[in-house]
Amino acid sequence: MPRVSEAWLRKILTVLYERRHSTRAEIVRATRLNVASVSQAIQRLLHQGVVQRSGQLRSAVGRRRDELKLNSEAGYFVAVDLEGTRVRFGLTNFLGDVRHRWEVPVAVGRKLDLHTLARGIEAVLGNLGPRERSRVVALGLSYTGIMDRQGRVTAWNLGWEDFPLREKIRGLVDLPVFHGTESLAKLSAERWLGAARGRSHCVFVTVANGIGCASMNEGHPLLGRDGAAGELGHTIIDPAAPDRCNCGRTGCLEAIASSPNIVRQYLEKTGQRRKPIFGEQVVEVFARVREGDAAALEVIDRAGRYLGLALANLANLLNPELIVLGGDLIHAEDLFLPRIRTELARHVLPKMQVSLEVQMSALGMDIGLVGAASLAFHGALRDSALLKKICSAHPEEVRAA
Amino acid sequence: MPRVSEAWLRKILTVLYERRHSTRAEIVRATRLNVASVSQAIQRLLHQGVVQRSGQLRSAVGRRRDELKLNSEAGYFVAVDLEGTRVRFGLTNFLGDVRHRWEVPVAVGRKLDLHTLARGIEAVLGNLGPRERSRVVALGLSYTGIMDRQGRVTAWNLGWEDFPLREKIRGLVDLPVFHGTESLAKLSAERWLGAARGRSHCVFVTVANGIGCASMNEGHPLLGRDGAAGELGHTIIDPAAPDRCNCGRTGCLEAIASSPNIVRQYLEKTGQRRKPIFGEQVVEVFARVREGDAAALEVIDRAGRYLGLALANLANLLNPELIVLGGDLIHAEDLFLPRIRTELARHVLPKMQVSLEVQMSALGMDIGLVGAASLAFHGALRDSALLKKICSAHPEEVRAA
Repeated sequence: MPRVSEAWLRKILTVLYERRHSTRAEIVRATRLNVASVSQAIQRLLHQGVVQRSGQLRSAVGRRRDELKLNSEAGYFVAVDLEGTRVRFGLTNFLGDVRHRWEVPVAVGRKLDLHTLARGIEAVLGNLGPRERSRVVALGLSYTGIMDRQGRVTAWNLGWEDFPLREKIRGLVDLPVFHGTESLAKLSAERWLGAARGRSHCVFVTVANGIGCASMNEGHPLLGRDGAAGELGHTIIDPAAPDRCNCGRTGCLEAIASSPNIVRQYLEKTGQRRKPIFGEQVVEVFARVREGDAAALEVIDRAGRYLGLALANLANLLNPELIVLGGDLIHAEDLFLPRIRTELARHVLPKMQVSLEVQMSALGMDIGLVGAASLAFHGALRDSALLKKICSAHPEEVRAA
Repeated sequence: MPRVSEAWLRKILTVLYERRHSTRAEIVRATRLNVASVSQAIQRLLHQGVVQRSGQLRSAVGRRRDELKLNSEAGYFVAVDLEGTRVRFGLTNFLGDVRHRWEVPVAVGRKLDLHTLARGIEAVLGNLGPRERSRVVALGLSYTGIMDRQGRVTAWNLGWEDFPLREKIRGLVDLPVFHGTESLAKLSAERWLGAARGRSHCVFVTVANGIGCASMNEGHPLLGRDGAAGELGHTIIDPAAPDRCNCGRTGCLEAIASSPNIVRQYLEKTGQRRKPIFGEQVVEVFARVREGDAAALEVIDRAGRYLGLALANLANLLNPELIVLGGDLIHAEDLFLPRIRTELARHVLPKMQVSLEVQMSALGMDIGLVGAASLAFHGALRDSALLKKICSAHPEEVRAA
């Protein structure tokens, strides 16, 4: 078998990872490799069982073109989603299907211990036989809060302050670990299996206990100097707004439009002193609006308007082609999308507005797990040793699976 | 001479372009190529006269290490700067030194004709002998206003509406053309020769008749879907601000902090009805502040505060390590830098503040020309034919120059 360059394999697998299905001719166009290189590399990938023929296209002149796809069982990823009030664990196959799930509720603010993480990872790995176990490529991890350069995480929902997560998780499991913020993982999921497939300039905005975002420019994530980019929630959206933010300032978008703050404003307006004020009650506020409750309507009007304004500012700075909305907003598409679209139409410069779309995420509950797996897949394709592991699966083994 | 891959040459020249001076060992580290590849490629570049030995470093054990740099005369670039009230033309050498300049005042709003462009380009090329002329690599062009995907420019200062600039300029001169917005060109200049050397996450903000910005993330410019990213001037900085913007809205940063709007506010405050209100008068307002004029101080306080707030929002979104300020701000470092720093300290999240610097541009009047040339250099390194041209300069010719 002829020698195949690592760079060719990486480019071809990236195309198949992003597009799901592709012909040789499309791969040649997308990778800009020459036809012979693509043919040799694909022959190798087919032989190793990493890629499969998924169908045939026939053209008018009768020439047969194979359609290719990744073999769903060529590799597996462990996904850990540390977002919010549940820690979720999953095992995905090579196409991003979540095969096994494990979920642990989090006592907000109580320190999540390592044992819980270990048990969750073991719970999803335990479903695999030894052959499949040997084909687990990497672990992907998404987190809220802040990770510093040493991999220490500060996250209020997990009760962590400078918790050495990267080090600890590497001690737990003999797998390479790739990680990213919750927003980046979700954007990555949308690019893999959701609304952002094939979109190079896209943004994911999540509204829940906080408001975060992740962006891609020409397909590359905007991480910033410390990997801390995307603090949309702490952009000052109205210097005169009295709402006090968790960060101590006033005027932050998060202080007006995050789920707990939507609830807070509704309780204030209606003179209720119910506690604790959790973001989960936000769906009740949504329901009240639909029932015609004037106070609820006022709160959502305000939150929607400021959210739209913040997204317009973001769009004027980044000129994306797509903004995907997620988090608690998926329970209120009817309430937020029209309000956000109105603000975008008013404030995004016309030259950018033509190509700007806004959509609600449709990936459901699994978005965090798919996203974490996708961070792992993406990272593995960039790592020489892991690429080699992916491409050297023994053919019999894989085909038998 | 052994075969040298195009990719090696591109990587090595990029390192030397960015760092000015480098040893073989540093190039190996920066490019991640192996030692043999780097040695072969450098041997070729030295032989062709594209790279020169600039000095020797001796280590304690007496081993000699050559320091390498680009040959300043290995190639030339034509630079055209269409910013503001002057059109500037320049010819730079391979190190970004501006060798010849030509300048034409612009009657603001009167249509700039092609003849003026042709004469300017010819004026700087006319200084070259035939040998040097044959080593002009490309033309770099920076513009204000908007360029669409067909290369048509709309720019009020030049009286252009959908002017087919790219097509026209390619008809004028037998050189490949690379272009970018004024802000991107200036950021590119700062990365080549200024404050942003070696900085991967940086922003250039220019305040003049408008307010624009350009950003880089891991060294890649943020262009956005339509190349229109960076409209910092049209982010809404205060929904309640009454100032009306050129774009028809209120609340835009530009309506408060651009040079003409600083002048406008000063004239309004002092009851003057002087006209026309040009941005150039802004230096008078700066002077009044220094003389203790209370009205001028109030205007600059407001502009500086909102500018700082907008930069804080930008920093929270992009997490840059450096913001370079330019345009008319370079005449008022004493007035703006402290006000901007105060707002950044107040509003940028602590985790990002540690690594954030703000500086005033120190590249002076030539920044636009150096920037345009740098766009051309950058573009040429990415173009196979031009890379070949650069690397195949005849050694005798180059050495004789």
